[in-house]
Amino acid sequence: MRTRKLQLKKINRKTKKKKRRGEGERERRTTTLFFSCPDILKNPCSTLQHPEGIQDLFSSATRRLPYRRLVSCMDNIRHPFRGIIQDLKGRKACYKQDWVDSICSGARIMAPTTYIFFASALPVIAFGEQLSRETDGRLSAVEALASTALSGTIHSIVGGQPLLILGVAEPTVIMYTYLYSFAKRKPELGPDLFLAWAGWVCVWTALLLFALAIFNACNVIIKFTRIAGELFGMLIAVLFIQEAIKGVISEFGIPHNDDPLAIRNQFAWRYVNGLLGIVFSFGLLYTAMKSRRARTWPYGIGFVRGFFADYGVPFMVLVWSASAFAVPNGVPSGIPRRLISPLPWDPQSLHHWSVVKDMGKVSPVYILAAFVPAVMIAGLYFFDHSVASQMAQQKEFNLKNPSSYHYDMFLLGFITLLSGLIGLPPSNGVLPQSPMHTKSLAVLKRQMIRKRMVESAKECMKQKATKSQIYGKMQDVFIEMDSSPVSSTHNSFSSTKKELEQLKDAVLKSEDQESLEGGFDPAKHIDAHLPVRVNEQRLSNLLQSLLVGASLLAMPVIKQIPTSVLWGYFAYMAIDSLPGNQFWERILLLFVPPGRRYKILEGAHASFVESVPFKWIAAFTLFQLAYLLMCFGITWIPVAGILFPLPFFVLISLREHVLPKFFPPSHLHELDAAGYEEIVGRPSQMGLDCKHSSAEDDESEEQSDSEILDELTTSRGELKFRSRSTSIRDDKLHLQVFPEDGNN
Amino acid sequence: MRTRKLQLKKINRKTKKKKRRGEGERERRTTTLFFSCPDILKNPCSTLQHPEGIQDLFSSATRRLPYRRLVSCMDNIRHPFRGIIQDLKGRKACYKQDWVDSICSGARIMAPTTYIFFASALPVIAFGEQLSRETDGRLSAVEALASTALSGTIHSIVGGQPLLILGVAEPTVIMYTYLYSFAKRKPELGPDLFLAWAGWVCVWTALLLFALAIFNACNVIIKFTRIAGELFGMLIAVLFIQEAIKGVISEFGIPHNDDPLAIRNQFAWRYVNGLLGIVFSFGLLYTAMKSRRARTWPYGIGFVRGFFADYGVPFMVLVWSASAFAVPNGVPSGIPRRLISPLPWDPQSLHHWSVVKDMGKVSPVYILAAFVPAVMIAGLYFFDHSVASQMAQQKEFNLKNPSSYHYDMFLLGFITLLSGLIGLPPSNGVLPQSPMHTKSLAVLKRQMIRKRMVESAKECMKQKATKSQIYGKMQDVFIEMDSSPVSSTHNSFSSTKKELEQLKDAVLKSEDQESLEGGFDPAKHIDAHLPVRVNEQRLSNLLQSLLVGASLLAMPVIKQIPTSVLWGYFAYMAIDSLPGNQFWERILLLFVPPGRRYKILEGAHASFVESVPFKWIAAFTLFQLAYLLMCFGITWIPVAGILFPLPFFVLISLREHVLPKFFPPSHLHELDAAGYEEIVGRPSQMGLDCKHSSAEDDESEEQSDSEILDELTTSRGELKFRSRSTSIRDDKLHLQVFPEDGNN
Repeated sequence: MRTRKLQLKKINRKTKKKKRRGEGERERRTTTLFFSCPDILKNPCSTLQHPEGIQDLFSSATRRLPYRRLVSCMDNIRHPFRGIIQDLKGRKACYKQDWVDSICSGARIMAPTTYIFFASALPVIAFGEQLSRETDGRLSAVEALASTALSGTIHSIVGGQPLLILGVAEPTVIMYTYLYSFAKRKPELGPDLFLAWAGWVCVWTALLLFALAIFNACNVIIKFTRIAGELFGMLIAVLFIQEAIKGVISEFGIPHNDDPLAIRNQFAWRYVNGLLGIVFSFGLLYTAMKSRRARTWPYGIGFVRGFFADYGVPFMVLVWSASAFAVPNGVPSGIPRRLISPLPWDPQSLHHWSVVKDMGKVSPVYILAAFVPAVMIAGLYFFDHSVASQMAQQKEFNLKNPSSYHYDMFLLGFITLLSGLIGLPPSNGVLPQSPMHTKSLAVLKRQMIRKRMVESAKECMKQKATKSQIYGKMQDVFIEMDSSPVSSTHNSFSSTKKELEQLKDAVLKSEDQESLEGGFDPAKHIDAHLPVRVNEQRLSNLLQSLLVGASLLAMPVIKQIPTSVLWGYFAYMAIDSLPGNQFWERILLLFVPPGRRYKILEGAHASFVESVPFKWIAAFTLFQLAYLLMCFGITWIPVAGILFPLPFFVLISLREHVLPKFFPPSHLHELDAAGYEEIVGRPSQMGLDCKHSSAEDDESEEQSDSEILDELTTSRGELKFRSRSTSIRDDKLHLQVFPEDGNN
Repeated sequence: MRTRKLQLKKINRKTKKKKRRGEGERERRTTTLFFSCPDILKNPCSTLQHPEGIQDLFSSATRRLPYRRLVSCMDNIRHPFRGIIQDLKGRKACYKQDWVDSICSGARIMAPTTYIFFASALPVIAFGEQLSRETDGRLSAVEALASTALSGTIHSIVGGQPLLILGVAEPTVIMYTYLYSFAKRKPELGPDLFLAWAGWVCVWTALLLFALAIFNACNVIIKFTRIAGELFGMLIAVLFIQEAIKGVISEFGIPHNDDPLAIRNQFAWRYVNGLLGIVFSFGLLYTAMKSRRARTWPYGIGFVRGFFADYGVPFMVLVWSASAFAVPNGVPSGIPRRLISPLPWDPQSLHHWSVVKDMGKVSPVYILAAFVPAVMIAGLYFFDHSVASQMAQQKEFNLKNPSSYHYDMFLLGFITLLSGLIGLPPSNGVLPQSPMHTKSLAVLKRQMIRKRMVESAKECMKQKATKSQIYGKMQDVFIEMDSSPVSSTHNSFSSTKKELEQLKDAVLKSEDQESLEGGFDPAKHIDAHLPVRVNEQRLSNLLQSLLVGASLLAMPVIKQIPTSVLWGYFAYMAIDSLPGNQFWERILLLFVPPGRRYKILEGAHASFVESVPFKWIAAFTLFQLAYLLMCFGITWIPVAGILFPLPFFVLISLREHVLPKFFPPSHLHELDAAGYEEIVGRPSQMGLDCKHSSAEDDESEEQSDSEILDELTTSRGELKFRSRSTSIRDDKLHLQVFPEDGNN
């Protein structure tokens, strides 16, 4: 860790020197410095692709140069549309290729498509049920699925970054719950005008999002450090658990709009329903948690493990829903309780489409009042959408096509407007589905490249070519498949060559050992040294959105899911979101007695564990915990609860201006590292090496690819940077910079 | 692993040479060779204390010299009482010390006492409930507890090896179930004469056990290799799971002798009872499994973790039983169902004491027929009692006092006779409680030695003594506390000195580093290098038996345990018995695809994984699995099922005569190693080293002692020999041999 700190200091020192000396040979490295560098103004988005390193310099830069911030702010405002135009230009260059690549992928594209479909449809159904309970059925799973399908389809066709996945998310559900409970109590609105009023909220939200996109606000998302994001993630997890507990308890009571005299509502049968609720929710929670980790099971063949890891959770929902039909004959109908949702073709659902007609009936006072929730929603969406997009484009994925934060924010405004006008809850970019999408496409691309490279190598071997000829052919294939309309310049060509050097070494070296190890196997070397590439296209996104739309037709089946299974699913989502959240990990650390901290150091752990004294970790965590409790408390306030996102916006400012006064800046930086850097202990790293070498024996290389990626990412989809990669990190950074430069 | 095989070969070769050359300098080593060595005849028990190594030579010896076996057999028969007399002599020498040491331990003795009390009382209660169901209440938890208390008290006072724990175990329950189902159907016996007839079975069993003890049969227990023991353990686990499943299903039905018209037996309430059964049984299973591993939790202070690891399972039974009172008011009484058991002072229980009067009413045919189950029970007891005793005296515990297999078998006959005459189910030596007992006494002894050594070292330091003076004082204290009336000879003195060498080095070396590391801390060195010693006494055994007896007074409270909690407990016992059972580990290995076997090698694993080709492992395991299914099938046959132990006795013969024809002997030896040797992978061993060093920081050294011992033993109580200990193993073997020689 000490070496890392030294590195940081070195970078800081270098930057200072450079400012004095002017442009240096290594100036390209400092394009990541946000405020002190002129190139950044040409392409402000580039910072978003590598937030790591920015934060290092950002805090010191701002402290020294406060006026620069003002300049930058003014600059953003003075150049409206700059970001959007830049994004559009960048994406236009590769738009056709996005579709051509889609077709080239063939039927294999169905693997990431179905994977993301199941991963995104299930939460949407759960949120739909939550919405239905909170809005007395005004909105339900039908509207949530429809919104997800519509937004996803629009985004996949005209969106900027096609790796981003859209869906109805928990913040939307919470805000709509407040909107409904507010509207219900006001005689001027009432439940009937709720959707019309929510439509006005969407109009305001859309306007705010347009403004944010036009005035290049996405440039400031780097201020959203871990502290706010993880606190928000933690609050969502707490709300999920609350929802799960409330749900299970409600299984023991009489449902809101049900006949209390029905047999199913007699005391004994209500108690049966409640106990079945406990069995189903805990059953789903336990089996889903177990199957999530299936890829690391030592047992079972690769296909089975892969199936459980990718589709285990929806499969378990299916199994538990089916087992709910196994209750004995004598149990009255309606036990266990199942989802309450109209069918998409019921008049109740069709009524929504004309909500825009009711919008005129809302009195001007309430139209104006809609601005308050709109500010909150716009803030949340701005935050969520950008972070989801950023996570889908982490630099370790080596994406070729440019980012599109500003234009996507603009499009989100349009999507929100449309959703509001047709009475749907709006969608936004979702976590962890977006990085999961990129990850699954990386596996796909790897399979495709591998197949072609092995084929060409084998062909060369038939013609008795030398090892260097074989390598040359393999390199050609890689470069051909890696080419992108945006980055096919000389720079990217040479950087790719650099990336392939390990493979080259391995292939050429194998010549010496051939006699020892038997025949030359190109697949072996490719498996070990193939750089990560992502199959960037639009078809998987489009198809999954269409599948979500098609699942509306399956509503009669979806309605058979017991509600208690969904409560278990809420608990699963909460618990599954915790690992990788450093705030959570720090809370756990508080419970580790000093004599046992070595246990933490033995496993994979965040770098702050080694570099920050425990008392600072404890102080920072307790502050964050107190803040979390406050935020959770706010959500309980009946109407003012709608302001619950406010503390998060305040926190960003606190982090910038107040916290540095209480915490030593270097510790604060480590505890709140925007670079999401994690350093692994030695044993675990060794394990990875072992896997690499033995994965060669495994027949299903696809399986081991997924496994390695699984181990390198948190369940939030965040990549953990391994310490052993520090030596090649500079190269990667370099690589990441070049394609964009080529683009300018 | 290759080194180990080489070692084996070397030993074999050496033995051959010695036979040719006659007595050599290292002849003492070969006392472990059973048939080729004259000393063994003088003290045949010594082999039982170190079965490891015997097997190596045994198989080859028997193959080459079949006539020697006959000679040995005849020799055993020709010298009746030899083993018993030897045992009595050995134990007489230390009998007084057993009580003196008890008193010296003071109040601290309560820790192992309560630990073993809870670990043994709970299964006895569970078996009592099982007995009660299977015998229509003729026997119940009252009788099971009474038998355990009585047998334990007798054994602790007049028994040979006081480390052995007695209790009513599953084999007894199964046999008594068959006895009852047989007696019930015969009009001459009927349920009323069941206990009288069972009394006759006990009489026969006792006679057989007497004969086995008198004719030194315990010398043959080395033929009981892993294959039979683990198969039997697996069968018990399967029967436990069967009991758990049957139990949970029965919660949905109307109990055997209950009024079907009672409200609690209405369909809805029966269903509620069944669902509560699922919740309680799975709840107990899950929480018990989690708390069992508490010592390895990174979280929580040592005391809490230690409490959960030692008392977590009974605590969870308490918690779930208490939560069963949390059902709402409207639930009819009797839901959830609780234990059905008479109170110890009810006439129903008191009637048993005069069962001997009814024994005359049994017709002579049935008295003779009782011989058949008696053979089975005697066989099972002979096996179980010896193995439990052997596990309590594993050589790594460095016990000072001699073993007492023959005499204890004789005493078991007497205890069985007594139990039969007063209508109680007999008890025998139990696993894993017996090795758990030794383990907890090793922790106690360590604390005591440590305290005294630190005190004396600190005193010396006050007097400004040199490091070597301090060490001398510490060594004196150790030797004083380690002395035993049996082994206080010159030999044991020098061997102890050898054992302490590591500590000596550490203390003397510390002189050089003192200035670097600050003050000299004797506790630090003692923690790291103190050899294992066990507090061998009789009080903990006596007290725990008395506590079991006292718990009879608590029957009104014990009856509040819901039956479903016990079903969960049966499942817990089954699952908890699996890790460490190599048969189970080999079954799992069959499901590991070849590409993932490295995962097994990374963790702690048995040596066969590395040394035996997979196809042989698979063949051996499939044979064992087929055999298990056959045995399980036999238990389902109504009356002939009583012969279920027969296949195990047959298996011992198959192992000796048939299996070597199908399997290469070296592989067979590895797969069926009587030495219970396990070799750990490097990472895990590294972990242990880490723990050693950081345990020094931990304030609760007692906690870390228990943790190390926990990690070194399987849940069956078997010590895993670590590969790194191979270098000092010879010394230990040496040590183990010397005290007995001193005794001769």
